[in-house]
Amino acid sequence: MTTTRVAVVEKILGANDRLAAENRARLDQQGIFGLNIMAAPGAGKTSTILRTIEALSPRFTIGVVEGDTAAVTIDADKVIAAGMPAVQINTGGECHLDAVMLSGALKELPLDRIDLLIVENVGNLICPAAFALGTHANVLISSVAEGDDKPYKYPAIYRGIGALIINKIDLLPYVEYNLKYFKRGVELLNPGVVTFPISCRTGDGIDRWVEWLLGKIRQ
Amino acid sequence: MTTTRVAVVEKILGANDRLAAENRARLDQQGIFGLNIMAAPGAGKTSTILRTIEALSPRFTIGVVEGDTAAVTIDADKVIAAGMPAVQINTGGECHLDAVMLSGALKELPLDRIDLLIVENVGNLICPAAFALGTHANVLISSVAEGDDKPYKYPAIYRGIGALIINKIDLLPYVEYNLKYFKRGVELLNPGVVTFPISCRTGDGIDRWVEWLLGKIRQ
Repeated sequence: MTTTRVAVVEKILGANDRLAAENRARLDQQGIFGLNIMAAPGAGKTSTILRTIEALSPRFTIGVVEGDTAAVTIDADKVIAAGMPAVQINTGGECHLDAVMLSGALKELPLDRIDLLIVENVGNLICPAAFALGTHANVLISSVAEGDDKPYKYPAIYRGIGALIINKIDLLPYVEYNLKYFKRGVELLNPGVVTFPISCRTGDGIDRWVEWLLGKIRQ
Repeated sequence: MTTTRVAVVEKILGANDRLAAENRARLDQQGIFGLNIMAAPGAGKTSTILRTIEALSPRFTIGVVEGDTAAVTIDADKVIAAGMPAVQINTGGECHLDAVMLSGALKELPLDRIDLLIVENVGNLICPAAFALGTHANVLISSVAEGDDKPYKYPAIYRGIGALIINKIDLLPYVEYNLKYFKRGVELLNPGVVTFPISCRTGDGIDRWVEWLLGKIRQ
C-alpha cells in the first residue's frame, strides 16, 4: 500500500509543478508579483495582508486569494471591505492550496489591473510547504505567541521561504520567547533569509516589510 | 487521478481504523485511559502535558507519546525531565499521527505501570482530525493568541473532540479576542462540549482540567 501511495503522490506533485509553471507564466505575462503567505493558524496572515493593503493603497492594486478549509468568507470579506479584489478557495477540508486551485482562482481575478497578488495559504506549517503554486516568493509568518522552537520542529517550511515575518512582537513582554534561539534555528535552515519583526496590532515594523515588497513589485 | 487517490485514501483510513481498535483494546486491557491532544503549532500542548504531570505526579504514572514532523526530541526530553516515560514519533514530514505510529510507540512504553497515556499529536488543526488513534478522548487546545475565529475556519477538528482547552488566558488583556464569538462557533459544531480555560504560564484553571481527567482515569 505504501508503494501505491508514493506513486500517486509523485504523480500529483509532478502535475502540480507543471501547473505552477503555467500560473507563473500567467503572472509574468501581466507583470504581477505573486506572494504565497504561509503560517500556522492565527499567526496573523490576514492582518498582515490588511496592513499591506493599507500601506500600498491606492497606488497599487492588490489581488488576494484566500485559502480556507471550510466555506467561510471571513478573510475574503475583510479584503473586499478594504477595497481590493479577493477570491476565496474552499479546499473542502484539504490542508493546503495547490497549483490547480490557484489556477482556478486566477481566472476569477481582474489580472489586467492587479500589481501584486497575495495568496493566503491554509493555516498549516506542514503540508503547504510541499506544493508550489507558481508565485514568486514564499513568505512565512511566525507569531511570537507560538514560541521560539518552531524552526526546529517544522524545518521543511522554513527551508523553502524567501522572507520571514515575525508577528505579534507587541506580545514579547508577556510570553517566554528567546529571539536568539529562534533566529539560530532559522539560520541553520535558511541562512541569511530576510526577516521582518512586525506587529499588526500596533503597525510596528510594517514600513520595512512594505519597502521590501515595493522593491519586488517594481522589478 | 482523483478517483485513484480517493480509493487509496479510503484503504488507508480503513486500515487505520482497524489498528486504532487494536490500540484501544490494548489500553483497555491495561486499564489505561488514553488522550489524544491536538492543537495548532504553539498553542501549548507540551506545556499542558507538563502542568498535568506536575498535578498528578507521583500518584499516577503518565506515559507520553510525542509526535513531531522532524527528528527533534525537545518535547520528549521535557517529559522525561519531569520524570515520566516518553516516546518520540518522528513522522518524517507527515502532518499527523496515525494508529500505525501509535501502535509502534505503545510497544516502547512500560504499559503495565502507566495509568494515563497522553499522545501529543503533530501541531496541525486539519489533518490529525481524520485519523483515529485508538485513544479514549480527543482534546483540542486552542490558544487565545490564535484569535477567536478558529472554530469557524477549522470546523472538522472542533466537531470530533470530547474536551476543549482554551490556553493562554493570561494574554487576554493584550489580544483582540471575543470569547462569546469563539464559544458560539464551538457550540454550533459540538454542542455542550466541556471547556477548560487555562493558563499554563500562571497555572490558572489547571485544577478544573485535572479534576475532569481524574474522573476519567478512575473510571
